[in-house]
Amino acid sequence: MSTEIKQLQRTLTEFAQERDWEQFHTPKNLVMALNGEIGELTEIFQWLTPEQSLSLPENKQEHLEEELADVMMYLLRLADKCEVDIIEACHKKLIKNKAKYPADKCFGSAKKYNEL
Amino acid sequence: MSTEIKQLQRTLTEFAQERDWEQFHTPKNLVMALNGEIGELTEIFQWLTPEQSLSLPENKQEHLEEELADVMMYLLRLADKCEVDIIEACHKKLIKNKAKYPADKCFGSAKKYNEL
Amino acid sequence: MSTEIKQLQRTLTEFAQERDWEQFHTPKNLVMALNGEIGELTEIFQWLTPEQSLSLPENKQEHLEEELADVMMYLLRLADKCEVDIIEACHKKLIKNKAKYPADKCFGSAKKYNEL
Amino acid sequence: MSTEIKQLQRTLTEFAQERDWEQFHTPKNLVMALNGEIGELTEIFQWLTPEQSLSLPENKQEHLEEELADVMMYLLRLADKCEVDIIEACHKKLIKNKAKYPADKCFGSAKKYNEL
Repeated sequence: MSTEIKQLQRTLTEFAQERDWEQFHTPKNLVMALNGEIGELTEIFQWLTPEQSLSLPENKQEHLEEELADVMMYLLRLADKCEVDIIEACHKKLIKNKAKYPADKCFGSAKKYNEL
Repeated sequence: MSTEIKQLQRTLTEFAQERDWEQFHTPKNLVMALNGEIGELTEIFQWLTPEQSLSLPENKQEHLEEELADVMMYLLRLADKCEVDIIEACHKKLIKNKAKYPADKCFGSAKKYNEL
Repeated sequence: MSTEIKQLQRTLTEFAQERDWEQFHTPKNLVMALNGEIGELTEIFQWLTPEQSLSLPENKQEHLEEELADVMMYLLRLADKCEVDIIEACHKKLIKNKAKYPADKCFGSAKKYNEL
Repeated sequence: MSTEIKQLQRTLTEFAQERDWEQFHTPKNLVMALNGEIGELTEIFQWLTPEQSLSLPENKQEHLEEELADVMMYLLRLADKCEVDIIEACHKKLIKNKAKYPADKCFGSAKKYNEL
């Protein structure tokens, strides 16, 4: 896996250990924390048009960076706790997605693979 | 940023371009897709005890890997579209979190910083 | 509270009791199940424009009805388990919202009350 | 449908109209707002054990009531905008669920219908 991802996961583990938070970080709890952070991320975009969502004003952009980071950090913690190499998992899933969504069959279509 | 993250983001961009899906991948839409995937991830854990969530049976573990990958891929796409270096954003947010949650003040406590 | 809401909640309790599912229906688990269902609801709208979301094709409309029902049923179960009269809670929150968002101050604006 | 539900939906429509917010309340946007509120609801329970989630301290209980109300209000708005009679939809879905989960087959089991 990416050294930088692993390094970040190690830092997050230390952060939790220093606060005696490992006891709270079960996968079940972490997925709930992830839901909470995704909620805050979603709030940024909820009343914007798709076009407006493409370029946020500067103060919203800073907020967005923080919310993206919060989501990422809980996701990496969760993957770590579940002993999943998340980068490898992405590459494996991409191969599946390529088979599910052949470019010629789904070109320009947002339909689900079972509706194509 | 991590070369591996950037590389994965490039692969995801190509995947979208080959299918003419860039038109759907506004940040607003991507954050919705992220919510959908988080929902599927959550479903895996919903009826498990925190203890059970720590070690899934093998067939669930494979499912988990796929859902984690789906969440990660939409998150990386979203960060990419919003021009956020997500690894750097994590390190910046961690510094903030360290100040918000001093180890001695929040040791063993799951309280929010404004409740400490 | 609405007799119909209470009646529906009673039916949902019976449904759980007949299946010996009360053991799974802690508030923590129910809020996770709610997240899962919201994810499925979100998926219906994720690639649609705001305009398209206003009138779904007939087969999607049926799917939508089911997902709205799933969300509603877990929400009512959760409120029931937490001993919250959800209709009364709405009326109380509405009074708060009216004070937070005076019509003349936020007319036509999607800003949050602390940004007005 | 329940007169009280319909009445609440009418009040919510007026609330939006008085603030010229109807323009923001497309189903797509409302489902995002719903996700945001669910995130806040989830946050209440994320670090609690299932047992702790059964009886919140008093100040959390008030917070919970407000979050349940926020979720309910966006859900009712969404159903209204999509012209779905949500109480009727629940009763219809319950009939389906009874067929999918026969009491004798799934007694005491949290498995999905397709895993039974």
